[in-house]
Amino acid sequence: MNLPSKYLENAVEAFASLPGIGRRTALRLTLHLLKKDKQKTIEFAEAFTELVANVKRCKKCHNLSDLDICAICSSPKRDESLICVVEDIRDILAIESTQQYRGLYHVLGGLISPMDGVGPADLTIASLEERLQQQKVSEVILALSATMEGDTTNFYLYRKLAPINVNISTIARGIGIGDELEYTDEITLGKSILNRQPFENTLSK
Amino acid sequence: MNLPSKYLENAVEAFASLPGIGRRTALRLTLHLLKKDKQKTIEFAEAFTELVANVKRCKKCHNLSDLDICAICSSPKRDESLICVVEDIRDILAIESTQQYRGLYHVLGGLISPMDGVGPADLTIASLEERLQQQKVSEVILALSATMEGDTTNFYLYRKLAPINVNISTIARGIGIGDELEYTDEITLGKSILNRQPFENTLSK
Repeated sequence: MNLPSKYLENAVEAFASLPGIGRRTALRLTLHLLKKDKQKTIEFAEAFTELVANVKRCKKCHNLSDLDICAICSSPKRDESLICVVEDIRDILAIESTQQYRGLYHVLGGLISPMDGVGPADLTIASLEERLQQQKVSEVILALSATMEGDTTNFYLYRKLAPINVNISTIARGIGIGDELEYTDEITLGKSILNRQPFENTLSK
Repeated sequence: MNLPSKYLENAVEAFASLPGIGRRTALRLTLHLLKKDKQKTIEFAEAFTELVANVKRCKKCHNLSDLDICAICSSPKRDESLICVVEDIRDILAIESTQQYRGLYHVLGGLISPMDGVGPADLTIASLEERLQQQKVSEVILALSATMEGDTTNFYLYRKLAPINVNISTIARGIGIGDELEYTDEITLGKSILNRQPFENTLSK
């Protein structure tokens, strides 16, 4: 597919660099932008330059935020003695939509995955330890995907946090093994938070 | 889904404004951009601002181009006496990839569709008439989709161009190469019987 314009080619390449978008779809999206008002496309592009320029990570929980401390961490209504450890922001959105959890979060930024070259040092585990030392926390809830990487990370965190005097629980495996948090329905996910289990209980199974 | 950042929200909205992309996919794509190098995302955005700033429509055929006259229109190797009328640039890419056509094109920019509020005046039909008057053209090939809108546009063009001394043809409609008769729909099969060709005509190709 030889496009007749360098700029068209660059725009198609930009779209095609996104996951799940092939060159044919990329061309369709680019032509859609060209059919719209020029100003609309400029605003489309600005949304991304402003995104990288302005979006921050919360200094406490590493969630995406416009401020140094995110709305959840700074809310007086949240229970500061609970920290729910999740992989990324989408998991927070999923858990928030269940309305079953009123504690704080900690975004790991990934899962331990030797296959993908992600080790514990690539995650925000040190920062989680710091939080637990500085702040009075009664319970850490591990809410990671029920995948091999999630289990590995659960186990690593359990070992790592054991010296700290804190209860460690995992969300109940009401969610199907192999399912990802983001795609779990709200009721199942809500129940699985309510039915969280001491980590030791899950070891024997 | 309440996003914790205005800039994140804007970026997700921008992706979700594209056809076929919902909010969940939009968020996935946005987080993908955030995981990449900042510079990469800035380049991603620049591809679109540069697109609207620089891409033009060829003054002859209305194809997208970096120059006033596109590469096909300005090529000395193309047969100027043939003009193939297509809906948009994707049709040119499809026809070019067959390597069976060496004439010029004319991009209508759409099809007549009263349902979508697209009338003849919204298309580049006046410009096509001008080309036919200024330039010696022996044949106009109508290569539009075999849909109701395509047929309507074909018929409109046929009537409109009738006063001009030029042959008007449409691309052959019939069963596709490799198709089995049994599975071909009745209308296509009926048309292909009505529009049967002398066998000799098919031999030389």
